[in-house]
Amino acid sequence: MSAAARAMARADELAGCSERAGEITRRYGTPELVAARELLEAWMLEAGLRTRVDRAGNLIGTLGAGERPAVVIGSHFDTVVDAGRYDGNLGILLGIGCAEELAGADPAHDLTVVAFCDEEGTRFPTAYFGSRAFLGAPLPDGALTDAEGATLAAGIDIAGNAAAEPGSGLPANAVAYLEAHIEQGPVLEAEGHPLGIVTAITGGAKLTVTLTGTAGHAGTVPMGLRRDAFSAAAEIALAVERLARDDGEAVATVGEVAVAPGAANVIPGRAAISIDLRHPDDERRGRLLGRVREIVADVAARRDVEAAVDVVHDERSVVCDPALGERMRRAARSIGLDPPSLASGAGHDAVVLSDHVPVAMLFVRCAGGISHNPAESVTEDDVAAALAVLTAVVRSAE
Amino acid sequence: MSAAARAMARADELAGCSERAGEITRRYGTPELVAARELLEAWMLEAGLRTRVDRAGNLIGTLGAGERPAVVIGSHFDTVVDAGRYDGNLGILLGIGCAEELAGADPAHDLTVVAFCDEEGTRFPTAYFGSRAFLGAPLPDGALTDAEGATLAAGIDIAGNAAAEPGSGLPANAVAYLEAHIEQGPVLEAEGHPLGIVTAITGGAKLTVTLTGTAGHAGTVPMGLRRDAFSAAAEIALAVERLARDDGEAVATVGEVAVAPGAANVIPGRAAISIDLRHPDDERRGRLLGRVREIVADVAARRDVEAAVDVVHDERSVVCDPALGERMRRAARSIGLDPPSLASGAGHDAVVLSDHVPVAMLFVRCAGGISHNPAESVTEDDVAAALAVLTAVVRSAE
Repeated sequence: MSAAARAMARADELAGCSERAGEITRRYGTPELVAARELLEAWMLEAGLRTRVDRAGNLIGTLGAGERPAVVIGSHFDTVVDAGRYDGNLGILLGIGCAEELAGADPAHDLTVVAFCDEEGTRFPTAYFGSRAFLGAPLPDGALTDAEGATLAAGIDIAGNAAAEPGSGLPANAVAYLEAHIEQGPVLEAEGHPLGIVTAITGGAKLTVTLTGTAGHAGTVPMGLRRDAFSAAAEIALAVERLARDDGEAVATVGEVAVAPGAANVIPGRAAISIDLRHPDDERRGRLLGRVREIVADVAARRDVEAAVDVVHDERSVVCDPALGERMRRAARSIGLDPPSLASGAGHDAVVLSDHVPVAMLFVRCAGGISHNPAESVTEDDVAAALAVLTAVVRSAE
Repeated sequence: MSAAARAMARADELAGCSERAGEITRRYGTPELVAARELLEAWMLEAGLRTRVDRAGNLIGTLGAGERPAVVIGSHFDTVVDAGRYDGNLGILLGIGCAEELAGADPAHDLTVVAFCDEEGTRFPTAYFGSRAFLGAPLPDGALTDAEGATLAAGIDIAGNAAAEPGSGLPANAVAYLEAHIEQGPVLEAEGHPLGIVTAITGGAKLTVTLTGTAGHAGTVPMGLRRDAFSAAAEIALAVERLARDDGEAVATVGEVAVAPGAANVIPGRAAISIDLRHPDDERRGRLLGRVREIVADVAARRDVEAAVDVVHDERSVVCDPALGERMRRAARSIGLDPPSLASGAGHDAVVLSDHVPVAMLFVRCAGGISHNPAESVTEDDVAAALAVLTAVVRSAE
């Protein structure tokens, strides 16, 4: 069995570690998360990696004695609810595949494979909990609770290793962090490329816009006397969509919509929408954010409704290391590929690592651009190509 | 105490009959509904009306021996959840006030005051249950249930009078049904009129429009490759709003909005909106409905999403009797008023009565156009004017 076929089979086996039968749901601090990690650890050991689990629950496997510069390859093994089998997991399995490919060879680099225990933040209100803890950050407040009221502390009791030494798991000799990940978008498929080189991980802002008008009877208030909060929200949503479309590189999404009172025969007195706005260029994103505020103010004034804009978060973009990208590109060319450059619209553990080590990301084509969904799909050929690229970077000095 | 002041005080007293402390909630088939009816019956008896309760639970009071043409005055005493104190109730109290004003007089008409037990349909999935039953329609299926699973049959056991004769409660000599009601809209207040003469009760259609696109990651799917179901819904909502505004007489409302999956970082794959569309002219409403279908088809085609339009109901308009309206107008002029004509955007028991007897409706100015809300408010002067108009119509032959 090829290393790529093995990675595919292992992704299938990991998919069996799920909190709910018939789907893939593996949140932090659950026995199923630990079961998945135990599978990963067994495969790491088979591949000759020395393993340990840190205080948060990240699994770290190392190859080499620390005398050569180290390449770190990683991703996460927690999932969203009703997830696909490749998001996160594939990046770890390709790291393990790398170790297998390098068995008996004399690579230019040491290799650390890291499996992050919580990237999605599906259960607790944390962001990049696993990778932050890997870098030695203090664990978040254990009193944080999930939707059922269970504490993060109880989750750490299940998933973490209390006996582990504190401190950063990043090797002192680390020169690169590589993360391979399904694209989660349709570009590679549309353009016919198995792989893509990520130039930047797009920063993004999340806003909540709340409009307050006047509720009223749908039959008795003439159109000219209305202060319809939902109409204002709809107008803002469409203007923001146009703004992103006109920019060409930005994406903007209204994914949450709430209307009150929410009855068919009542004019909405209140509406709230989320706006997710991303742009790989921080300065241009900042300007777009300013335009969104202007749009909201303009629509609110014209419709005589009150508007509040709450910026829930606004994260900078991370530029991937161009030299690492070039090394991956050369490796890809050596197997006959010409991977395009593209930005990652989604966040990844590489964002956190980028503060400490040069990072690069390799995108793997996925069917229909679908992710966070049981329909996630990749081909064995594309996985083999990704493995060849990663292995070449670890193997060669340059 | 004037009859108008008494009506105001009685509305306050009725407001105490509520299923929940601190608000006014009085649904069909509850002990509180029966308690309110008992108050109404006591006041009817004081006013010299002979009373009875029918099988559904309507309260009927009559004055006169059946030798003169009868005017029926009525409205409903059930409420929505967290209601105001005047919607429905005021119309009944004005009928009782009429009987008091006519005490010892020799009016040209007999008077029947009817208090309908269920107009709002707040609890059971019925429409105009009280007035339909008053006219002798068979009671709805007793197996109908409320949100908690209680049956309509059990509600009828509490509120209805099983010993009552079946058949219509409408007097054989009825020549008019008059319903006074708060406007539930802002027009009279805006134009400075205490009263308005209703020309028609506007028919209305309720539609549900469901859009199906493709859910996707908010960061990874370029704007040009999206099939965003909510954007399509927002565009339809705004186009329908414009359609009603341009018509001048129509009103259109999107009051219910649902988006799936409903996460800030996921492009909506599905969106559903309600459209409430009303126009006093049935033919023009029909044409507008056709335009709404065209708008939906056009937006769906342009955005490459699937659209389904479900017409939940479509009710004809009821034209009020012009001669009765003129009699009310003359009575209003005799007390120095010049009531404007306006359509009722809300439905009323008069819709059901209109199949059997000429109907007219008198609107009473309400503060801010607010209804279905504890803030419902009318002035004693306006109530006195409405009482004078109704009384004049019952008193005089022409």
